[in-house]
Amino acid sequence: MLNKQLKSWVEVKTDSDFSIHNIPFGIYSDAKTKHHACTAIGDKVVDLYELAIAGLIEVNAQVLENDYLNDFISLGKTKTTAIRERLIQLLTEGNTELKNNAALCAKVFKKQSEVSMLLPVKVGDYTDFYSSIDHATNIGTMIRDPKNALMPNWKHLPVGYHGRASSICVSGHSFHRPKGQQKPPDSEMPVFGPSKALDIELETAFIIGKSTQLGESISTDKADDYIFGKVLFNDWSARDIQTWEYVPLGPFLAKNFASTISPWIVTLEALEPFRTKGYEQEPKVLPYLQYSGEKNLDIKLDVFLKPEGGEENKICSSNYKYMYWTMEQQLAHHSVNGCNMNVGDMMGSGTISGPDPSEYGSMMELTWRGTKPITLKDGTERKFVNDNDTLIIRGYCEKDGLRVGFGECVAKVLPAN
Amino acid sequence: MLNKQLKSWVEVKTDSDFSIHNIPFGIYSDAKTKHHACTAIGDKVVDLYELAIAGLIEVNAQVLENDYLNDFISLGKTKTTAIRERLIQLLTEGNTELKNNAALCAKVFKKQSEVSMLLPVKVGDYTDFYSSIDHATNIGTMIRDPKNALMPNWKHLPVGYHGRASSICVSGHSFHRPKGQQKPPDSEMPVFGPSKALDIELETAFIIGKSTQLGESISTDKADDYIFGKVLFNDWSARDIQTWEYVPLGPFLAKNFASTISPWIVTLEALEPFRTKGYEQEPKVLPYLQYSGEKNLDIKLDVFLKPEGGEENKICSSNYKYMYWTMEQQLAHHSVNGCNMNVGDMMGSGTISGPDPSEYGSMMELTWRGTKPITLKDGTERKFVNDNDTLIIRGYCEKDGLRVGFGECVAKVLPAN
Repeated sequence: MLNKQLKSWVEVKTDSDFSIHNIPFGIYSDAKTKHHACTAIGDKVVDLYELAIAGLIEVNAQVLENDYLNDFISLGKTKTTAIRERLIQLLTEGNTELKNNAALCAKVFKKQSEVSMLLPVKVGDYTDFYSSIDHATNIGTMIRDPKNALMPNWKHLPVGYHGRASSICVSGHSFHRPKGQQKPPDSEMPVFGPSKALDIELETAFIIGKSTQLGESISTDKADDYIFGKVLFNDWSARDIQTWEYVPLGPFLAKNFASTISPWIVTLEALEPFRTKGYEQEPKVLPYLQYSGEKNLDIKLDVFLKPEGGEENKICSSNYKYMYWTMEQQLAHHSVNGCNMNVGDMMGSGTISGPDPSEYGSMMELTWRGTKPITLKDGTERKFVNDNDTLIIRGYCEKDGLRVGFGECVAKVLPAN
Repeated sequence: MLNKQLKSWVEVKTDSDFSIHNIPFGIYSDAKTKHHACTAIGDKVVDLYELAIAGLIEVNAQVLENDYLNDFISLGKTKTTAIRERLIQLLTEGNTELKNNAALCAKVFKKQSEVSMLLPVKVGDYTDFYSSIDHATNIGTMIRDPKNALMPNWKHLPVGYHGRASSICVSGHSFHRPKGQQKPPDSEMPVFGPSKALDIELETAFIIGKSTQLGESISTDKADDYIFGKVLFNDWSARDIQTWEYVPLGPFLAKNFASTISPWIVTLEALEPFRTKGYEQEPKVLPYLQYSGEKNLDIKLDVFLKPEGGEENKICSSNYKYMYWTMEQQLAHHSVNGCNMNVGDMMGSGTISGPDPSEYGSMMELTWRGTKPITLKDGTERKFVNDNDTLIIRGYCEKDGLRVGFGECVAKVLPAN
């Protein structure tokens, strides 16, 4: 149904992320509504709870009046896909079931600018991968050796680690610059204080849509059944804290002070038209990591830095298609030992860098560890993120006139408290 | 109240972990009961829901009829401590409020051997530390260099990393040996198959009893307010998978196939009489990690290996008092960057090894990487854990005739599936 171009009777500007081909899922609140599941079309939010109460979508309304989408997602893809297709039908030009019911429209449609979007899912477990070859090569080149930039395991398995779920926040929040231990190169002892190297990581994340039992594995060819959809993700990182703490057990306080995701989960179905060929993997991966078909995704990703009271500065334009490891491989790897998945679990891609320096997905790479500062429009320079800077990630897919986007992933850094 | 010896009118053998000085919390189920909060005395379970319904403890019974203790713990320490003290009162020799109500006693008391103990809390986030100096020194000596066994950061901060919450299981379960990538030393390429080096890690874990907001920190002197209690913990580890995957982001599939905890949360109040002096920390730690008072704990810990159909073999006797970093320091460190805590979060100690080889808390150390196999009573040898072996951790505190124990943390390894 998504291969032909549809038009909605609701106004959708051509550069809107929320065309009728998207129909993502989220949770909103406003003065009247504590927490309802919703979708987006153009600049509107569409209240799914009200649509269910009115009998226009077939689903137990209770799962739509909820802090999170977990219960909705747990209905299963057959059901949630049918609901999404029904929403597309209701919003398509020519359909009058909703359009001609003015009283219902008044309850159902709200301006996106007038509601608050909430965290869409309760994340049980959060895993972050490290799957962009350009990012891993850049980091390895900087902190080790350009000739051996990639660790021996990197091309054999999608390296990943567990992150902190409690500090995942929805776009629009602000947080205090983290404090922690750092060891300056010229100091014999570590010091304590606010991070001097607060960085962004341009990522996306996928949300698990189907649970497994401990002991079960998910094959690459079944993985899509377990992926509900994707969000934009900023994996904030304090590089100075990370450098000192991460050996031998990985990043910890350098990451768990805050992570930001966009509020709309764009379904895998909405992303299917934008599949593209995966990275050529050489050496050949082990059988459980092999897959067939086009499993990469062409998602344009931009990062903007906005100083307090200033203009937005685009600091990076990357693309999800640069990923070496696909989501399907990540999930097959993660579960090959029997690790169980729960609906709402989140898996980050890792920083998404492209081959060109303008495509690097972190300040560490963009400024090459602070050696090449970025000059902003206001003439100030940045090696890392300053206090009161706002960072914005935007992302969308576009092909043959179809546009499906994620909206924004925004957060502001406040001074250390 | 716990400094004098109390006696219960319920029979408690002198070697029972569940004296009237303990009164831990758990969740049980049996043919009649889906999930009720309970405590233990002697070889009995005491149903707290039934006590609340009967009006003998003052608490909303609904929080006691629950999959997990999280809602109960969220009542706050003032409330839960008062309930525990009331339970001690009800069970103390001389008190007849419960004792003389035969009908209620029939509902409230069940044999521990006739109920199933469930996972006591829903773990939101699970963190594992690496805080035993003997363990870290042994591992560093084996895989790096005896002269530089400890990493430069080790004595400056309690090294920790995020683990997988979904695969934490309660004592009594079994799981399949994990499969995964390993790179044998003599092979150019990694291979895939069941782990050949499945190991235990003797640990304890503490459970968070009070939530914080993002941006809040917990000082060492307030940390105990946020610690509800402790459990025994076996952090199963596949050493061959770990060796290949863990650089540079830490352990992942080597750990997240299964972790086992004991079902009873022994409260911090019950453990207070067993406080002991902490490790002498040199060099001096940064101010946010300094603390006063005796913050270590004297907990005797034993590990037993039981082959299929065979006898138990004690393979290790260690003690929690060997920890270099205290729980209070771990929590202060974990939150110093503003990372938020939720009731039910779990923090593992890291493998608890003592200085003597008989006190090493993992097979890797006990057999020195397989070079010194353990001979069992049946004449068979173990370098690591075999299929169908059952591993049992037991732990208790004992001082001046007071005994407070944890019961058992048991799990059996099934062949890879």
